Amino acid sequence: MRRTFILIIIVLQVLNSTAQTNDQEQIRKFYDLALTQGKSYDWLNYLSNQIGGRLSGSVQAEQAVNYTRAELDSLGLDRVWLQPVMVPKWVRGTPEFAYLESKPGYTSNIPICALGGSVATPPGGVKAEVVEVQSLEELETLGQERIKGKIVFFNRPMDPRLLNTFQAYGGAVDQRSSGAAQAARYGAVGVIVRSMNLRLDDYPHTGSTNYGDLPEKDRIPAAAISTNGAEFLSTTLKLNPEVQFYFKLNCKQLEDVQSYNVIGEIRGSTKPEEIMVVGGHLDSWDLGDGAHDDGAGCVQSMEVLRLLKKSGYKPKRTIRVVLFMNEENGLRGGRKYAAEAEQKGEKHVFALESDAGGFTPRGFGFDSSDADFEKIAGWESLFEPYLSDHFIRGGGGADIRPLKKEGMVLAGLRPDSQRYFAHHHAQNDTFEHVNRRELELGAAAMTSLIYLADKYELGSIGN
Amino acid sequence: MRRTFILIIIVLQVLNSTAQTNDQEQIRKFYDLALTQGKSYDWLNYLSNQIGGRLSGSVQAEQAVNYTRAELDSLGLDRVWLQPVMVPKWVRGTPEFAYLESKPGYTSNIPICALGGSVATPPGGVKAEVVEVQSLEELETLGQERIKGKIVFFNRPMDPRLLNTFQAYGGAVDQRSSGAAQAARYGAVGVIVRSMNLRLDDYPHTGSTNYGDLPEKDRIPAAAISTNGAEFLSTTLKLNPEVQFYFKLNCKQLEDVQSYNVIGEIRGSTKPEEIMVVGGHLDSWDLGDGAHDDGAGCVQSMEVLRLLKKSGYKPKRTIRVVLFMNEENGLRGGRKYAAEAEQKGEKHVFALESDAGGFTPRGFGFDSSDADFEKIAGWESLFEPYLSDHFIRGGGGADIRPLKKEGMVLAGLRPDSQRYFAHHHAQNDTFEHVNRRELELGAAAMTSLIYLADKYELGSIGN
Repeated sequence: MRRTFILIIIVLQVLNSTAQTNDQEQIRKFYDLALTQGKSYDWLNYLSNQIGGRLSGSVQAEQAVNYTRAELDSLGLDRVWLQPVMVPKWVRGTPEFAYLESKPGYTSNIPICALGGSVATPPGGVKAEVVEVQSLEELETLGQERIKGKIVFFNRPMDPRLLNTFQAYGGAVDQRSSGAAQAARYGAVGVIVRSMNLRLDDYPHTGSTNYGDLPEKDRIPAAAISTNGAEFLSTTLKLNPEVQFYFKLNCKQLEDVQSYNVIGEIRGSTKPEEIMVVGGHLDSWDLGDGAHDDGAGCVQSMEVLRLLKKSGYKPKRTIRVVLFMNEENGLRGGRKYAAEAEQKGEKHVFALESDAGGFTPRGFGFDSSDADFEKIAGWESLFEPYLSDHFIRGGGGADIRPLKKEGMVLAGLRPDSQRYFAHHHAQNDTFEHVNRRELELGAAAMTSLIYLADKYELGSIGN
Repeated sequence: MRRTFILIIIVLQVLNSTAQTNDQEQIRKFYDLALTQGKSYDWLNYLSNQIGGRLSGSVQAEQAVNYTRAELDSLGLDRVWLQPVMVPKWVRGTPEFAYLESKPGYTSNIPICALGGSVATPPGGVKAEVVEVQSLEELETLGQERIKGKIVFFNRPMDPRLLNTFQAYGGAVDQRSSGAAQAARYGAVGVIVRSMNLRLDDYPHTGSTNYGDLPEKDRIPAAAISTNGAEFLSTTLKLNPEVQFYFKLNCKQLEDVQSYNVIGEIRGSTKPEEIMVVGGHLDSWDLGDGAHDDGAGCVQSMEVLRLLKKSGYKPKRTIRVVLFMNEENGLRGGRKYAAEAEQKGEKHVFALESDAGGFTPRGFGFDSSDADFEKIAGWESLFEPYLSDHFIRGGGGADIRPLKKEGMVLAGLRPDSQRYFAHHHAQNDTFEHVNRRELELGAAAMTSLIYLADKYELGSIGN
């Protein structure tokens, strides 16, 4: 009995180490292919430099749909299609303009951009005194009498001490997303926000602002100024609290328009009804080219399916790449995809999103059951040679979150985050700031994770 | 007896966890200071943009010595001094020029630069047919008859599959360092080398070539061409093996000149005779500004002493920052420092070098005894919150290697290596390619390691 037991243990160990060796080899193959014959960088070049910024409803967004669909078509997948989705269309109009005036005739221009979703200023712009605050809460302390008729300037910087810059972003972005809605309730005539950028530079960073249920007539224009501009304005206000700030926005919310999620799939060989998604969002803000946010995530996701095919690996489950439309200002693509999956009774077991920039991957974050995370943690050593073995709990991505159900696993690629917010939503989110190898390493890591999640049937525990 | 034993265990555990907590807090302090009040980025800005490339013996190298000495003087260290060292002086002369000629009158320019230490071409340049090889060994196979009178073109690329790009560099750099010496023995009239760059672009990358004991009169000119240039030349040669290549170098080796290592120290409070060094090299190649190689390592090392002082930590041992001169083409600074330490009977117990670029730190490499590495490995968890916890064996740096003695520990900062060779020794090794946070994180990680090595007396085991 005891000898049988020992024998079983030995056989299991041998099987396990053979599986590990096979996995190591398979993963090495993905990396070698990505680093020597990768396509992601060329795709990103096209998306960034031939198409450019791809705001929902724009001609560029439509071009990106057509381009990525055609590229997926060329990969020999089992099926490629467009999923219609109605998206909001907000347009920036002519370039924004701002200055501060220390006394009549003495003005300094400040780099500015409208926040996505903002209403325009009156045609002549807005000019008023400025009240600087550090938080939404401070509005209440100041009260209507000190805010009414003024421009509220939200100037709390992202916290540079946080190693994960997404946490620093999370700790500051309420000023951008809710600042206008809140300040309007106290009678402000406009809102300007310090750009969500850890660096001091001259680029204003856009991003959504949300008026919530504020009636149309009460909405006030909202814009971001560059971090250098914010420093300058703040210093000036200390010297002269009566300084006047002028800005002019020409943006407009139009009617919703037809757009699409772009989808391609490799049908599973033995469990085709179990679906694994890998994706990013195809839309981007309009100021730059959306190279990091999220062109990188799109081309990496496309590359996952290409590498799986090229390596000869036949997934058991159906692997689907989804390039979601409208993450930036509506999340309509993500919601539509989840709603249709629900309606058709599709069984999604795993979804991975890349939406944190095309930088050197450090690992993944997971939203999963304890049992699944235990399984996942067992794979870390396979990613150690690639220095992408930092696996943590908590993860996913905005587009795949609507898919989440009990038992399903969501994952998010975690690239190095130090440089991301120097480019995020700004004019300098361009192709030359993406390093080919860093992008390709992300694609290889994602392919490896999809391979393991397929082979070891991650996400089926709760089903 | 048993209860006493348990009590001792508990006391030891409490002490140990208190020590860990203290270390965590101290390290957090270094990071907070580096990320909120760091000086390294401003110093690097000056070194890169006000001084620029700092080749040994140049005016810029002299300016860098004076500048860093003055900055160290301002930190309130216990002692700051210059250590004289004679250095070689090689000058590039007027910009190099090259073209390939497919038939008389049909020429295409190729971006080229002389390798450091190369002899000049004759005043009219060199023009000859090209023989392309992939390795030094291939010269022997081809033999004198197929090489004599020709230009040898070394075109083996760095291996893109290697995750650690320094390994890829190590696997290709023999072509640059020994190609000219070897090819000369077979009667070649010149050597051109594919730049040590993983990216396809238009920058030629310089770096030392070494003729060894080859007599002066037998030395042939050696240059690097850009990776795009190498691809173009290689393709052209396949179509037309008789293509002629022309290049002209105006470089010159002058007499050795006086220069200096720049040194500053905080004297140890209880063990001042035990010395720990942290450093980088102050000289750089001349094409770019030496921002990553190795301005970054210098300013990070200066920042270590500044952060130690600013945090109020009083080291037991003497902590010395050494900015070595002449790493790139002679290593005279490193050798001089070690020789003088030996001569004075100084006891060096630990040395840390940063010379791999100012990118996000991933960890450190160590050259140490097994016992010391075990101690070091116990510190990994302290670096985990900063994602710089990848500690491996093997490390140090060219400048500190001459110091190595039994029992002493050498360490090297290991930053993310994906982007380094896109800038290394080339015109685009400039300040705008250094990210402030990445640089500061490296300085904070280095300070934390120096702190731990001081507190726990690393490197004293073998003494």
